[in-house]
Amino acid sequence: MMKNNLKELYMLPTVKRANCKYFDYAATTFMPESVMNRWRDINELCGVSIGRGKSKLTKVADDILEKSENIFYDFFGISHDYSFIYFKNVTEAINIISMALNHKLKPLDMIVIGPYEHHSNYLPWKRLAKNTGALLVEIPTDYKGEIDYSFIDRYSSQIKLLSISTISNSFGHKVDINRISSKLSNQTIFLVDESQVSGHENIPCNKRINIHFISSHKMYGPKSIASAVVHNDLLEDIPPILLGGGMVENVGYLDSWASGRTKFLAGTIDVAVIAAWAEACIFLSKISYPRIIEHEKKAKSIIRSVLLKCNYKIIETDSCSDSIISFTHKSIHSHDINELLSDKNIVIRSGNLCSQNSIRKMELGAINRISFGLSVSSDSLYHLSNALEEMANDKILL
Amino acid sequence: MMKNNLKELYMLPTVKRANCKYFDYAATTFMPESVMNRWRDINELCGVSIGRGKSKLTKVADDILEKSENIFYDFFGISHDYSFIYFKNVTEAINIISMALNHKLKPLDMIVIGPYEHHSNYLPWKRLAKNTGALLVEIPTDYKGEIDYSFIDRYSSQIKLLSISTISNSFGHKVDINRISSKLSNQTIFLVDESQVSGHENIPCNKRINIHFISSHKMYGPKSIASAVVHNDLLEDIPPILLGGGMVENVGYLDSWASGRTKFLAGTIDVAVIAAWAEACIFLSKISYPRIIEHEKKAKSIIRSVLLKCNYKIIETDSCSDSIISFTHKSIHSHDINELLSDKNIVIRSGNLCSQNSIRKMELGAINRISFGLSVSSDSLYHLSNALEEMANDKILL
Repeated sequence: MMKNNLKELYMLPTVKRANCKYFDYAATTFMPESVMNRWRDINELCGVSIGRGKSKLTKVADDILEKSENIFYDFFGISHDYSFIYFKNVTEAINIISMALNHKLKPLDMIVIGPYEHHSNYLPWKRLAKNTGALLVEIPTDYKGEIDYSFIDRYSSQIKLLSISTISNSFGHKVDINRISSKLSNQTIFLVDESQVSGHENIPCNKRINIHFISSHKMYGPKSIASAVVHNDLLEDIPPILLGGGMVENVGYLDSWASGRTKFLAGTIDVAVIAAWAEACIFLSKISYPRIIEHEKKAKSIIRSVLLKCNYKIIETDSCSDSIISFTHKSIHSHDINELLSDKNIVIRSGNLCSQNSIRKMELGAINRISFGLSVSSDSLYHLSNALEEMANDKILL
Repeated sequence: MMKNNLKELYMLPTVKRANCKYFDYAATTFMPESVMNRWRDINELCGVSIGRGKSKLTKVADDILEKSENIFYDFFGISHDYSFIYFKNVTEAINIISMALNHKLKPLDMIVIGPYEHHSNYLPWKRLAKNTGALLVEIPTDYKGEIDYSFIDRYSSQIKLLSISTISNSFGHKVDINRISSKLSNQTIFLVDESQVSGHENIPCNKRINIHFISSHKMYGPKSIASAVVHNDLLEDIPPILLGGGMVENVGYLDSWASGRTKFLAGTIDVAVIAAWAEACIFLSKISYPRIIEHEKKAKSIIRSVLLKCNYKIIETDSCSDSIISFTHKSIHSHDINELLSDKNIVIRSGNLCSQNSIRKMELGAINRISFGLSVSSDSLYHLSNALEEMANDKILL
């Protein structure tokens, strides 16, 4: 079986955490040494907010921000026509952006989302539709569960806003973003949630995308930081939602806001988590996505064989990410599977995975999800495989 | 002059940062070793979000959260009738809470704020007033700049919502929160912003307060975390604003939310910054507020004497905090003062301090602010005093 040589080479985040065998990378990942060190270094070096006052410390903070963002532009392959706006997590980002787009929607406008969205890319749009009288429509799927791309052709002139996750968190369904981009009308505001992508492979980039949502903590960066990466044309066209210090130019009968992305940066912005996130990008570039994909592909293939052998039902389509595998068992409830594994210190997930709509679409009440990442070792895979096998065999014997 | 023995005793946050003499504690403070170590320890120990899944790691995260919050309740003296809701900073907290209170306001209802509010406790209420047709009224001041408390008597039956900072960030004006509490009608929703308090002295607590806003990074904790501490009665009565994973019970034609404060905790919540913030509380309790007050009182008195001697105009009332001193000079512009000090690596602030309304109320365009904290040493005070003196003398010689 594969050697976990990545671990030795790159000081991977150790999962000594409660001695767990961790298979919940779709929920969150752990920071490697270099990322935690960077957080500390920046706090020791400056530790002040960006853009406040004119001291040398602020200059240092602003410089660190600029350097970090140059790393982001380069690593993600995003053009400088986009600006990074910061949020504590992607959930906040999507909520605030959905509020900022309120004035763009009129009654009967069509808001479209993907078929397998996380609640965070579903509920805010549902609210926006309700508030504006717009329709909320989920892209239909074919009998195999694949996105019906012809929907976009058929309705492209009607779609006012489309928000979709490149990879779904519930079972890893992967969307061809470039295919959608090529079919969209110029009138559509196109938002892409990359939460499940950036820890595993390149995010899709093309100039048709108006906003990318990217999460730090799902790609070995710190929690408490995420970004809406907004095309500058759209940026000019949306109002700030969080009002406060640093984002207002003049307070008066009619307030006027600071220019550019600054109007979206109210309050103290923590440069240490931004710099640590950039360090996570460096960490991932050193390992390189092809090696990560190779690592996760092997891991998934091992677990997939075990699941098939033991009569688990795998939930998948032809276009699934190698980072996630979801399943059920006809005789063991998903919560029991979770608990039995948890007793062996193996961490996977069960339930609706914050995606009730997509689970119901599969005509299920609850599923199990195993998700892979860099610290998944031969040893942890061995334990998980055995446990899955044991459970199924025990059930047969009962 | 005072010995900086606090520093040796408690491993204070070192301000080796660019060799600066730092006097901007009202903007942000620096973490001591123990706080940074705690952040790292928690990330190494668990590093998962609170309330996700049923694994041992999640149990660890939930336990750390509970322990941290017990420290908060104890340290702040807040009763268990309140719940901590987390935000990335107080600016976000006030914005989101102001949105959640929208349904409480009707046209011509009176929203009252303090006379010297930071933009973050001003602009969100201005927007709420605009959206609901309510009036936004600032508490008037007497000729000395003190709050006119009789305003509350006169209008108490009309005030629907009152939001005020206990200590203003612009020049340290301190409000008698208990006095306001005792005069308020039971109908008033009373919110208190403690951003400028908790790094220096106890926050005022009484059961009349519905929400406290508290910031971690202004009290030696990490950035990226703050709280709205909401009385449970009000909590039941306000809807969630950030929608997403973890806060929804059932997604349906009408969505139903999770109970208690969980409905406000959408997305990944970073237990490491919460635990580190609790560690900052432990750090401050070890030093104790009386010693901090003594330290800052001495520092302020030294600088105050220099400012008076050199004909700077101090902006103050009889009830100012010892943590802040603001001033102008009749012949030197505040930005020049800032720059001249910055050349000597001394960090203070100039401008409107994110409080345009309060600066205009003083009939000024810009002011300077010096603010004190634990790492202010005899040496840094000596440098600041000399620099202030030199500047004034140079100006006279010109």
